[in-house]
Amino acid sequence: MSSSTERQPVIVLVRPQLGENIGKAARAMLNFGLTEMRLVTPRDGWPNPSAGPAAAGADVVLERAKVFESLADAVADCANVYATTVRKRGVTKPVLTPEEAAREIHVAPGRSALVFGPERSGLETDDVALARAIITVPINPEFGSLNLAQAVILCAYEWSKGAALIQPTQEDLLPRASQYELDGLIGHFEALLEPKDYFFPASRAAATRRTLRNLLTKPGWNHLEVRTLRGVLSALERKGSKPQ
Amino acid sequence: MSSSTERQPVIVLVRPQLGENIGKAARAMLNFGLTEMRLVTPRDGWPNPSAGPAAAGADVVLERAKVFESLADAVADCANVYATTVRKRGVTKPVLTPEEAAREIHVAPGRSALVFGPERSGLETDDVALARAIITVPINPEFGSLNLAQAVILCAYEWSKGAALIQPTQEDLLPRASQYELDGLIGHFEALLEPKDYFFPASRAAATRRTLRNLLTKPGWNHLEVRTLRGVLSALERKGSKPQ
Repeated sequence: MSSSTERQPVIVLVRPQLGENIGKAARAMLNFGLTEMRLVTPRDGWPNPSAGPAAAGADVVLERAKVFESLADAVADCANVYATTVRKRGVTKPVLTPEEAAREIHVAPGRSALVFGPERSGLETDDVALARAIITVPINPEFGSLNLAQAVILCAYEWSKGAALIQPTQEDLLPRASQYELDGLIGHFEALLEPKDYFFPASRAAATRRTLRNLLTKPGWNHLEVRTLRGVLSALERKGSKPQ
Repeated sequence: MSSSTERQPVIVLVRPQLGENIGKAARAMLNFGLTEMRLVTPRDGWPNPSAGPAAAGADVVLERAKVFESLADAVADCANVYATTVRKRGVTKPVLTPEEAAREIHVAPGRSALVFGPERSGLETDDVALARAIITVPINPEFGSLNLAQAVILCAYEWSKGAALIQPTQEDLLPRASQYELDGLIGHFEALLEPKDYFFPASRAAATRRTLRNLLTKPGWNHLEVRTLRGVLSALERKGSKPQ
């Protein structure tokens, strides 16, 4: 088991009602690399034929899902149990955002579990009591309407952000053009503009050149982009043009 | 209009197919305080009776949704246009995570738009070309299966997280030029290049136009910079030039 897998939190769905929502939760999980689902007494039994289609290909999560008789059983091997609730209950536990919980999960020793309640009612007070901390998604106070899979995806997403599977996204962008290439471009512009009296009057010429340079420096174009622009300028200076 | 509302990105759904998904996107938005939805040629017209039930109470978003004939029209008043794509395309635009984009949106002058493509196919290359930057959710490389509302909710969630934390710091910067001004600049370039056979052969013309658009969209020039460039182009097209 890789260390990344060890640090994966278990996703526990307590008394989920619809198979479709179990499937959607599986899909949400796998999008962010989570594979271990546990179900506590799902209303319609397990397996549930509605789950597969909703999982949209995340079958591996459903196939491995384990069913438990109680939440206590489901999280018995977990050292860090987080209960997700919409609002803080009258319990004295730390209340974390998904981001704060994710940060803890990545460094805390032992397995972690993220526990989600049934679709309509959410977790019971006794379920919450099993948890070390509460996760509440900071939501529009005037419209809080997260469904089960959405709550799962936000927690999975935050976990994933902290995980090793995230690779830098900009590596394959081309590097910026060199100053030499950029100067070539600016010089080309100036050579075209000079005979058009763009830099007239002479007293303004230095400021106008500076403005033009600033504007062309700002983009941080790469080598190919500068070459394309040189092509544009070459086209514009072509003789035998037929002005519109 | 509160400053918080001004900083709200517009959510643009391009050619959405199912009314149900439009409703789910509205629900996702309102959960995190976003209220302005724009629709580009929704497949089944608008309003769509399937949207309301799926919005689960986020009716205010649907009622205020505006329909546009093209993405260019939908983002004409926006200075910061972000295209969401699953994978990097062969375009040289910055690729941001939802978190990085949210951070930008909170400080960038001008309105921002988050653009989402149709359910199955995602955004077309020509749609992406309109954007200054790309947003890609860092996802499990072996299972990327975000649906429309999930992509919306992750972006809305990140925006909302930043709203609580980030204060605008760059307000004195000039705002980016609007998409309308940018289109004017691109059109000016094209009008000058057309008679020079820059877009020849015809089979390459669309790709060449796209390359030019991408290149000119990248800088995020402000109003003054675009005006200066228009002046440069006007100088270049001046009659009576004396070629060097």
